[in-house]
Amino acid sequence: MSDLAPPTVVIAPDSFKGSLAASAVSSAIARGLRRVHPGSEVRACPMADGGEGTLDAVLSRGGTRCTHRVTGAGGRPRTAAYGLIGAGAEVAAGVTAVIEAAEIVGITDPVGMSVPVADRATQGMGELIRVLLDAGIRRFMIALGGSSTNDGGAGMLSALGLECFDDAGSRIAPTPSGLTSLARVDARTLDPRLAQSAITIMSDVNNPLAGTKGATAIFGPQKGVRRDDVAAIDASLARYAELAEQALARRTAANPGAGAAGGLGFALQLIGGTFRSGAEVVADLIGLNAALAGADFAITGEGRSDAQTLLRKAPYVVAERARAAGVPIILLSGAIDTAALPQLAQAYAGCFALPAGPMALADCIANADALLADRAEQIARLWSAARSAQRRD
Amino acid sequence: MSDLAPPTVVIAPDSFKGSLAASAVSSAIARGLRRVHPGSEVRACPMADGGEGTLDAVLSRGGTRCTHRVTGAGGRPRTAAYGLIGAGAEVAAGVTAVIEAAEIVGITDPVGMSVPVADRATQGMGELIRVLLDAGIRRFMIALGGSSTNDGGAGMLSALGLECFDDAGSRIAPTPSGLTSLARVDARTLDPRLAQSAITIMSDVNNPLAGTKGATAIFGPQKGVRRDDVAAIDASLARYAELAEQALARRTAANPGAGAAGGLGFALQLIGGTFRSGAEVVADLIGLNAALAGADFAITGEGRSDAQTLLRKAPYVVAERARAAGVPIILLSGAIDTAALPQLAQAYAGCFALPAGPMALADCIANADALLADRAEQIARLWSAARSAQRRD
Repeated sequence: MSDLAPPTVVIAPDSFKGSLAASAVSSAIARGLRRVHPGSEVRACPMADGGEGTLDAVLSRGGTRCTHRVTGAGGRPRTAAYGLIGAGAEVAAGVTAVIEAAEIVGITDPVGMSVPVADRATQGMGELIRVLLDAGIRRFMIALGGSSTNDGGAGMLSALGLECFDDAGSRIAPTPSGLTSLARVDARTLDPRLAQSAITIMSDVNNPLAGTKGATAIFGPQKGVRRDDVAAIDASLARYAELAEQALARRTAANPGAGAAGGLGFALQLIGGTFRSGAEVVADLIGLNAALAGADFAITGEGRSDAQTLLRKAPYVVAERARAAGVPIILLSGAIDTAALPQLAQAYAGCFALPAGPMALADCIANADALLADRAEQIARLWSAARSAQRRD
Repeated sequence: MSDLAPPTVVIAPDSFKGSLAASAVSSAIARGLRRVHPGSEVRACPMADGGEGTLDAVLSRGGTRCTHRVTGAGGRPRTAAYGLIGAGAEVAAGVTAVIEAAEIVGITDPVGMSVPVADRATQGMGELIRVLLDAGIRRFMIALGGSSTNDGGAGMLSALGLECFDDAGSRIAPTPSGLTSLARVDARTLDPRLAQSAITIMSDVNNPLAGTKGATAIFGPQKGVRRDDVAAIDASLARYAELAEQALARRTAANPGAGAAGGLGFALQLIGGTFRSGAEVVADLIGLNAALAGADFAITGEGRSDAQTLLRKAPYVVAERARAAGVPIILLSGAIDTAALPQLAQAYAGCFALPAGPMALADCIANADALLADRAEQIARLWSAARSAQRRD
């Protein structure tokens, strides 16, 4: 057996939803690896996919966390965090603002959720973008996961200068409720600086704004839209979209992703935003490719890996980039769906799960930190044993 | 990446108690390995530790399975399997009989268990040994795990010629019940061929025959001895042992292991048997060392690995021999006790458990075959990735 240098390892997991943030997952895995190789070079690259945790993941590799006071989904002010980053290939053109919709209109915000969905709106998004435009920022990365709103992004557009009127010429509230009396949209007052801005939208949602696969039909009920109201609200959003599209001379309501975040995906595209896979954007922003260069192996993971993982979730994006870099990539997730294992196995140099034996989900979640370190340690032991075993070939 | 020859792998697990026999565990692991390397040379060496499964493990590598009609624990005849082996370093001196006590007086035999423990005896053991002596066999390997009897081996000795009398000079039954009136033991009629025989006793039990750590106190209750009867039965066994020891002019009741199999450990030592770790004997009989020579790696395992494993259970004996052969040894068990993992980890190039996620024990047991193949596949993937990764050191 030869004495080997301690391995250089990239740790790039997504969060374990309901259990640990991606940075905590990284730390636990690093702890386990260091039990085997105290001298390991660990490159922690916590990942995210454009949902909650995206801001944290991006800021883990640099940048500044800022806050701004904005109007929350329910109309009450709240403090929203956002990030400013200024380095890396992706942001070569200057400072980029990273915004999480969930920080402003999050479905986990009890204040916003206490207001009926018909009266919730995204104006806080527009307020924040406007303030950032005032600060000279023209590059935006906006993560759409986890919103409580279903206003088609009307609140945001309204805060950015779009004007919405009823039959009588009075301004209406840019909420699902207000939009039912929408008669005319004026885009002439829309902030002209948006036309000079680059807006990247991070979302994995492919739904259009309206219709049977639209935001209201698919995501409305979990936000509080009553089944009986779906058709009326959907029709009202479709009408609003048509008027807004005419006013801006651009059509985006039928685009994939227009239905993301209750229609924020529509509105952001309408003002020039383009969709990208959240995991790809995060991988770029955190410099994953550079971290992989020269690494011995990499570990990724998520709370549960299944067939969805292969649809370009964060662990899959990490796997693709590791493969491109020639770095073996190991999957360490809370659970691995047995039915999906044959396909998952093709993408990884080993798929491993958290439990050390028969164990209930609640125990896995409660002990995730210790279990992660233990499993990572065993993976590192096997890796090193294989590396240092005498070559017989 | 270099193209590597498929690895040569030794698979030497114990049985997964209550789930799969060792040979079935081996097959499942081999199936998983071959998904990664169809051309792997798999050397299946199912292990055992002297308990149930020992005969199967030994015969998996050669020899003949025989049966003989003997008296069961409850006095009714039953067919007991035993093995005859005639090759290998351990058996150079000729044919060896491999006997499992559980085949004759097994605790899983409902017929024997339907008789009160006070009336159960081991005479079938003596009958089988006598028949084998008649056949010219002088080497015996006797596995003691899983017995239902608590007769101090009096039944076996009686069938081999030891005579037990009461005060009135009448022969007594060699059962716990009969031994209460034991007054005199005559060893002159004991089969003289035993003195020319080599008897190896396989057991991990270290208890003496009698006393607070004796067979009756520790193992009696699980065989049906009522707590209130422990003291009286223990005293009666101690008295029997004293008389038998006098008659044979040898003292073995206080030896470690005398309390194994309800005192069969005492009686077998009294007729010249010597204890050896069951796992060590099995490893020798199946030629584990030869199988390990030149292997790339080895996998062992058991239903549940914990601190007990380190007390020279089968997976630990396999680990020691693999280490001596310079072969990395991986543990793949149904469950790994988290508290024991730090110590277990020192003995293995990675400790892995069956579940692919949160899972109940019953599901692990019911799906053990598929789970084993899946986990073995992932271990093989990681092994091969580590072997074929470019050397950076």
